[in-house]
Amino acid sequence: MAEKKILLDAGSGGKASHRLIGELFKTHFSNPYLDRLDDAALLDPVDGPLSVSTDTFTVDPLIFPGGDIGSLAVHGTVNDVAMLGAEPLYLTCGFILEEGLDYALLERIVVSMGKAASDAGVPIVTGDTKVVPKGMADKVFINTTGIGRVVADPPPSGHRAAPGDVVLVSGTMGDHGLSILAKREGLSFETDVLSDSAALHKLIKRLLDEVGDIHVLRDPTRGGLGTTLNEIAGQSGAGILLREADIPVNPAVASGCSFLGLDPLYLANEGKLICILPGDKAEAALALMRSDPLGAGAAAIGEVTADNAGKVIMETPMGGRRMVHMLEGEQLPRIC
Amino acid sequence: MAEKKILLDAGSGGKASHRLIGELFKTHFSNPYLDRLDDAALLDPVDGPLSVSTDTFTVDPLIFPGGDIGSLAVHGTVNDVAMLGAEPLYLTCGFILEEGLDYALLERIVVSMGKAASDAGVPIVTGDTKVVPKGMADKVFINTTGIGRVVADPPPSGHRAAPGDVVLVSGTMGDHGLSILAKREGLSFETDVLSDSAALHKLIKRLLDEVGDIHVLRDPTRGGLGTTLNEIAGQSGAGILLREADIPVNPAVASGCSFLGLDPLYLANEGKLICILPGDKAEAALALMRSDPLGAGAAAIGEVTADNAGKVIMETPMGGRRMVHMLEGEQLPRIC
Repeated sequence: MAEKKILLDAGSGGKASHRLIGELFKTHFSNPYLDRLDDAALLDPVDGPLSVSTDTFTVDPLIFPGGDIGSLAVHGTVNDVAMLGAEPLYLTCGFILEEGLDYALLERIVVSMGKAASDAGVPIVTGDTKVVPKGMADKVFINTTGIGRVVADPPPSGHRAAPGDVVLVSGTMGDHGLSILAKREGLSFETDVLSDSAALHKLIKRLLDEVGDIHVLRDPTRGGLGTTLNEIAGQSGAGILLREADIPVNPAVASGCSFLGLDPLYLANEGKLICILPGDKAEAALALMRSDPLGAGAAAIGEVTADNAGKVIMETPMGGRRMVHMLEGEQLPRIC
Repeated sequence: MAEKKILLDAGSGGKASHRLIGELFKTHFSNPYLDRLDDAALLDPVDGPLSVSTDTFTVDPLIFPGGDIGSLAVHGTVNDVAMLGAEPLYLTCGFILEEGLDYALLERIVVSMGKAASDAGVPIVTGDTKVVPKGMADKVFINTTGIGRVVADPPPSGHRAAPGDVVLVSGTMGDHGLSILAKREGLSFETDVLSDSAALHKLIKRLLDEVGDIHVLRDPTRGGLGTTLNEIAGQSGAGILLREADIPVNPAVASGCSFLGLDPLYLANEGKLICILPGDKAEAALALMRSDPLGAGAAAIGEVTADNAGKVIMETPMGGRRMVHMLEGEQLPRIC
């Protein structure tokens, strides 16, 4: 029997579109908001300012060690919404499908996406599907947009990094980027490294509730830790001093990077956060993160400084200092 | 001099991404929400239930008579948000760009998109850009997600169509679909038909404020009037009886359709709405629409009935009756 394929008419808006929505999306994403099926979702009022983020996922391969484009599309947007000190409430999704896509592959992705949303407690409330002719897209692209309620007051922001603050990360750097690359290139160390793709909003809620006074929360995705810290230095006008020896890197990632000539500082993470907060809160935040499976490898990696304004400086294990720049060029297209 | 092209590193998250965001998106979309540039946009509290809609635009060609993918991506989502009886407040955008895309073409689209958002009074508050290698997408795809404040109580919904209601449309059917197809196929009548792409939220606000008691608002986009009315019949469980002679169709669209073997009932519209409301309100709604340039061609085209539950029936000019089904197959891929 021939494998079932996605045909162009699944994006027509007509009968075939309704069949796809009914069989696949309504089945695996079902919730009272989605099930009304009007042009827009009718959502309950939100008390307070909104946190809204959008992200399009074009990751290649679609399924990788530790995740797939469906779960990644949920985790990535849930995390971005939460980084504003917010509780993620709702997700939307927009699929672009290539004509001829295996139905079974799409179903696997949709099931994973539905499970990730359900595990995170954030319903997918509305969606859209387009099908483009063969060769006009590469299998599946997914956009997700997330809406949350800001609970931190004031909300964390890259502008709020201040001298005396400590820079924490919730775990090892570069796992997602290296897992994708290893899978894509069929490298032999592929089995050693899993993507860290995970939803961090529950860990963030604990940090806000139990520690508080968090100045900056960011997830170092595309561009990695090096680029994200440069953004924060640029927004705040403060300097950031890192200690290279304290940046946690999984040994398999370090050896993969050395083999491939990559720098873990610029590899994407999809389940790690940067938390910048006053020095006297750092121990409590570290202890909390380390008590949580999502922050088990947390570490203090540096400080915010008044000097070197707008710059990120790294102290090497030998005691030297070098500038850490924003990523130049592109290490890895289609990493997320 | 070689034309400027979009390179892969524009999607890296690093320096080239920041340059593209600064030069293009911040320049043409600028507003205080967007300009903060954190992982998520911090938006003012919204008083009341939310209307949220998402749509991905893959229209081919990117620039067509009466619009382009940028303005369409604003109008389409603003309209979907408004159809819930809501005031659109915020838009997000997610771009997928193909490596090698002409910078000038992207700029033209972004300028048009910024102008459409500004004309509509709905700011683009956050965004994302991915670049995929050449051949992995077709030039530009754009997702927009819109958030609005529901003002109608109860909100219009396909479920609320009730026997005795009158079915109105705000103008001619099929202009967008035919304009795209004519342009794509290089047909000689191309100059005669413009897309109707337009933001309808101000007309909707007037209908809600000045007429009220509107049971259903929908925009007949992909799948056209025939498919959308079938959705409404399905949601409400009522029947819909149309009078074919009363459905407004631009003569150039009618002749193009007859030439191409297409049915204007199934062609997409991007600046028209279906309004279903109690019979005693129909005259006022029609008069209001006709007083507005966006509703100049408004017409009453049929009634909601207790019989023929869940079905759409059309009375032909000769007095016969036929069933109108949902669109089968695909007339026109990449229409929006």
